[in-house]
Amino acid sequence: MEHAIIVAASVVAAALAIGLAAFGAAVGDGSVTAKAIEGIARQPEAKNTILVNMFISVGLIESIPIIAAVIALALVFANPFVH
Amino acid sequence: MEHAIIVAASVVAAALAIGLAAFGAAVGDGSVTAKAIEGIARQPEAKNTILVNMFISVGLIESIPIIAAVIALALVFANPFVH
Amino acid sequence: MEHAIIVAASVVAAALAIGLAAFGAAVGDGSVTAKAIEGIARQPEAKNTILVNMFISVGLIESIPIIAAVIALALVFANPFVH
Amino acid sequence: MEHAIIVAASVVAAALAIGLAAFGAAVGDGSVTAKAIEGIARQPEAKNTILVNMFISVGLIESIPIIAAVIALALVFANPFVH
Amino acid sequence: MEHAIIVAASVVAAALAIGLAAFGAAVGDGSVTAKAIEGIARQPEAKNTILVNMFISVGLIESIPIIAAVIALALVFANPFVH
Amino acid sequence: MEHAIIVAASVVAAALAIGLAAFGAAVGDGSVTAKAIEGIARQPEAKNTILVNMFISVGLIESIPIIAAVIALALVFANPFVH
Amino acid sequence: MEHAIIVAASVVAAALAIGLAAFGAAVGDGSVTAKAIEGIARQPEAKNTILVNMFISVGLIESIPIIAAVIALALVFANPFVH
Amino acid sequence: MEHAIIVAASVVAAALAIGLAAFGAAVGDGSVTAKAIEGIARQPEAKNTILVNMFISVGLIESIPIIAAVIALALVFANPFVH
Amino acid sequence: MEHAIIVAASVVAAALAIGLAAFGAAVGDGSVTAKAIEGIARQPEAKNTILVNMFISVGLIESIPIIAAVIALALVFANPFVH
Amino acid sequence: MEHAIIVAASVVAAALAIGLAAFGAAVGDGSVTAKAIEGIARQPEAKNTILVNMFISVGLIESIPIIAAVIALALVFANPFVH
Amino acid sequence: MEHAIIVAASVVAAALAIGLAAFGAAVGDGSVTAKAIEGIARQPEAKNTILVNMFISVGLIESIPIIAAVIALALVFANPFVH
Amino acid sequence: MEHAIIVAASVVAAALAIGLAAFGAAVGDGSVTAKAIEGIARQPEAKNTILVNMFISVGLIESIPIIAAVIALALVFANPFVH
Amino acid sequence: MEHAIIVAASVVAAALAIGLAAFGAAVGDGSVTAKAIEGIARQPEAKNTILVNMFISVGLIESIPIIAAVIALALVFANPFVH
Amino acid sequence: MEHAIIVAASVVAAALAIGLAAFGAAVGDGSVTAKAIEGIARQPEAKNTILVNMFISVGLIESIPIIAAVIALALVFANPFVH
Repeated sequence: MEHAIIVAASVVAAALAIGLAAFGAAVGDGSVTAKAIEGIARQPEAKNTILVNMFISVGLIESIPIIAAVIALALVFANPFVH
Repeated sequence: MEHAIIVAASVVAAALAIGLAAFGAAVGDGSVTAKAIEGIARQPEAKNTILVNMFISVGLIESIPIIAAVIALALVFANPFVH
Repeated sequence: MEHAIIVAASVVAAALAIGLAAFGAAVGDGSVTAKAIEGIARQPEAKNTILVNMFISVGLIESIPIIAAVIALALVFANPFVH
Repeated sequence: MEHAIIVAASVVAAALAIGLAAFGAAVGDGSVTAKAIEGIARQPEAKNTILVNMFISVGLIESIPIIAAVIALALVFANPFVH
Repeated sequence: MEHAIIVAASVVAAALAIGLAAFGAAVGDGSVTAKAIEGIARQPEAKNTILVNMFISVGLIESIPIIAAVIALALVFANPFVH
Repeated sequence: MEHAIIVAASVVAAALAIGLAAFGAAVGDGSVTAKAIEGIARQPEAKNTILVNMFISVGLIESIPIIAAVIALALVFANPFVH
Repeated sequence: MEHAIIVAASVVAAALAIGLAAFGAAVGDGSVTAKAIEGIARQPEAKNTILVNMFISVGLIESIPIIAAVIALALVFANPFVH
Repeated sequence: MEHAIIVAASVVAAALAIGLAAFGAAVGDGSVTAKAIEGIARQPEAKNTILVNMFISVGLIESIPIIAAVIALALVFANPFVH
Repeated sequence: MEHAIIVAASVVAAALAIGLAAFGAAVGDGSVTAKAIEGIARQPEAKNTILVNMFISVGLIESIPIIAAVIALALVFANPFVH
Repeated sequence: MEHAIIVAASVVAAALAIGLAAFGAAVGDGSVTAKAIEGIARQPEAKNTILVNMFISVGLIESIPIIAAVIALALVFANPFVH
Repeated sequence: MEHAIIVAASVVAAALAIGLAAFGAAVGDGSVTAKAIEGIARQPEAKNTILVNMFISVGLIESIPIIAAVIALALVFANPFVH
Repeated sequence: MEHAIIVAASVVAAALAIGLAAFGAAVGDGSVTAKAIEGIARQPEAKNTILVNMFISVGLIESIPIIAAVIALALVFANPFVH
Repeated sequence: MEHAIIVAASVVAAALAIGLAAFGAAVGDGSVTAKAIEGIARQPEAKNTILVNMFISVGLIESIPIIAAVIALALVFANPFVH
Repeated sequence: MEHAIIVAASVVAAALAIGLAAFGAAVGDGSVTAKAIEGIARQPEAKNTILVNMFISVGLIESIPIIAAVIALALVFANPFVH
């Protein structure tokens, strides 16, 4: 029974973590990339500058969600509490 | 009984993860692609630049949701806790 | 009893996954196609370019929800946990 | 008792799936068709182009909700778990 | 007892389905018809074109909610699980 | 006891259905009729056209809520599950 | 005990139905009558036309909430399930 | 025990009904009377017309909440289920 | 035990009723009085007319919340169900 | 045990009442006083008129929350149900 | 056991009261002081008048939250129900 | 067991109080300081006046949250109910 | 068992406190720093003044969340209730 | 059993903390970086100043979420309560 409770809590926790992180990252990335496309459509000559900054921005935005993804992946595929 | 609890928690967790991720990804992609179509409608000559950036943007936005999808698929079709 | 719990959790999970995905996809598609119709009404000569991009956009938006639909369909019609 | 739990979970799941899908589809269709009527009221000569695109848009928007409707109908009228 | 659980779940599910569908359909129809009346008030000579499109729009919007209504009516008046 | 559970679930379901439907219908009707009064205040000579369309709009908006009302009334005054 | 469960469910259901209906009707009426007063303040000579339409609008808006009120009143003062 | 359950459900139901009704009525009245004061501040000579219409509007808005208040008062001070 | 359940339900119900009513009344009064102060700041000569109407408006807004307050006060200080 | 249930329900009810009332009153007062400061910043010569009306407005807004505070204080410091 | 229930309910109630009050007061004060700083930035010569009114406004806004704070502090540090 | 219930309730209450207070204070401070930076960017010569007022504003905004922090800290590090 | 309840409540409370605080602080900081970057982009010569004020603002905004972080860290790594 | 409860609470708490933190950080970073890209698109010559400030801003925004990530990682990979 103990084993079942730990596994059940782990998969629900993994889903919660990756779900919230995916939702937040998608919304955050969406607002940045939308602004970037808007900027490129207006000034095609600034394309490279904007694109580089968009990559940096997306990297910064996903720094915390990626930790959430790591925790979720660990809980599902390499759970430290299940022997 | 143990087996049932693990399976029940796994399918609910999979639904939660893929549901939130699909919702977030759809909303995030929606705002980016809407901006892209708006930009193309205004400047048809910048179509190629905008289209390439839209593909990159969608790829970045879906980076975390795709992990959520992988976790959900694994929990349903290759559950590591169910032997 | 075990069988009943697994089935009950599976159908509720399927409903949750397909429900959230359908909601998100409908809202996301709605914002893109609304922009596309607005663009066509303004510049009927750019109809083809906009229409092609609208199809690509809808395809990208529905990439994650379609996985959710696959999981939901599998849970209902080909449940791997019910023998 | 097992039979009752499966049936109860199935009907609640069907209601959840069709309810969320109907809500999302109605809201999504509403925003598209409102834009289409606005466009027709402004340029009656573009009526045919807009109308065709509105039909395509509504078809794309309802692609995922229609799967939800199929799942809900199957759970109620042809439940694969109830013999 | 089994009979009571099935009936109770059925009526609650019917209420959930028809309630969400009615809410969504009313809001969706409301935004379309409001735009249509606005358009007619501005250009009375386009009345017929707008009215026809409003009927088509409302028909498309209510396509999924009508399935929800069918499921709810079936669950209450012709429940396939209650003999 | 079985009788009590069925009755209790029925009245709560009826309240849920009619409550959500009444809320949605009131909000939807409110937005349409507000637009209609705004239109009449601006162009009193288009009063008849607008009024006829307002009646049609309200009729279309209330098509699904009226089914919810029928279900709620049936559950309370002619419950098919209570003999 | 059975009697108590039925009565308790009935009064809670009545409160839910009348509460949601009163909330929705008040908000819906509020938006219509606010527009009407705005219109009268601008064009006092159109007072009669606007007032008549406001009465019709309020009547249409309250058509579904009034059914909710009837159900709530019946559940409290003439409950068909309590002998 | 039966008596206690009925009384407890009644007072909670009364609070729910009067609470939602009071909240909705206050918000609805607030939007109407705010518009009326705005109108009077602009055109003091139309004070009487606006004031009369404000009274009619408030009366119409409070028609459903007043029923909720009646039900709540009856449940507390003249409960038909408590002898 | 019966006495305790009735008292507990009564105080929670009183808190719910007065809490929602106070919240709604404060928000409703706030929007009206804010408009009134704005009107007085613009036209100090219309101060008396606006002030009188503000008092009438606040009186009408608080008509339902005051009933909620009466019910809450009665439930706490003169509970008709506690002897 | 009875004593503990009554006391527990009383303190939770008091917290609910005072919490909602404090939240509503703070938001309502905030919108009024913000308008008043805006008015004073624009017309310093109307300072006295605006300040007096601000005091009246705050007094009217807090009329219902003050009852909630009285009920909460009575439940905590002079509970009529605890001897 | 009785002692534990009373203490547990008291600390949760205190947290609820102070939490809601702190949230409301911070949001309400925030809107007022933001307006005041905006006013000072525009007209530095009206600094004193605005500052005095800001203090009065904050005092009025925090009149109800301070009662909530008093109740919370009393429940934690001088609980009248714990001997 | 009693000791465990009191401690569990205390830490959850402390988390609730400090969490809501931190959220509210951060949002409230954020709106004030954003206005202040906007004002300084426009008129650098009014920097000192604005900065002093910003400090006063933040102090007033955090007056209630600081009480919440005190209560939370006391519940965790100097709990008066745990001997 | 007692030990488990205290630990479980502590970790959930720590998660709640740090989660709400991190969410609020991120949103609050986000609005301030966004305004600061906007100001620098407009007036690069005011860079230093704005940057100093941004640091002060962020420090003030995070004053309460940092207490929440301290409480959360203490509950996890130096829990005073676990010996 | 005790071990299972502690582990279950720990993983759910870790998911809650990292989920809320990731969501908040993504949204907060999103608004800052969007402003930064907007600023760069307008004034490419101020690229360096804006970029440096964007890095500082993101660092400040993620100061509290990073503590949440630390707590979540500790709860999963180095839980101090599990021996």
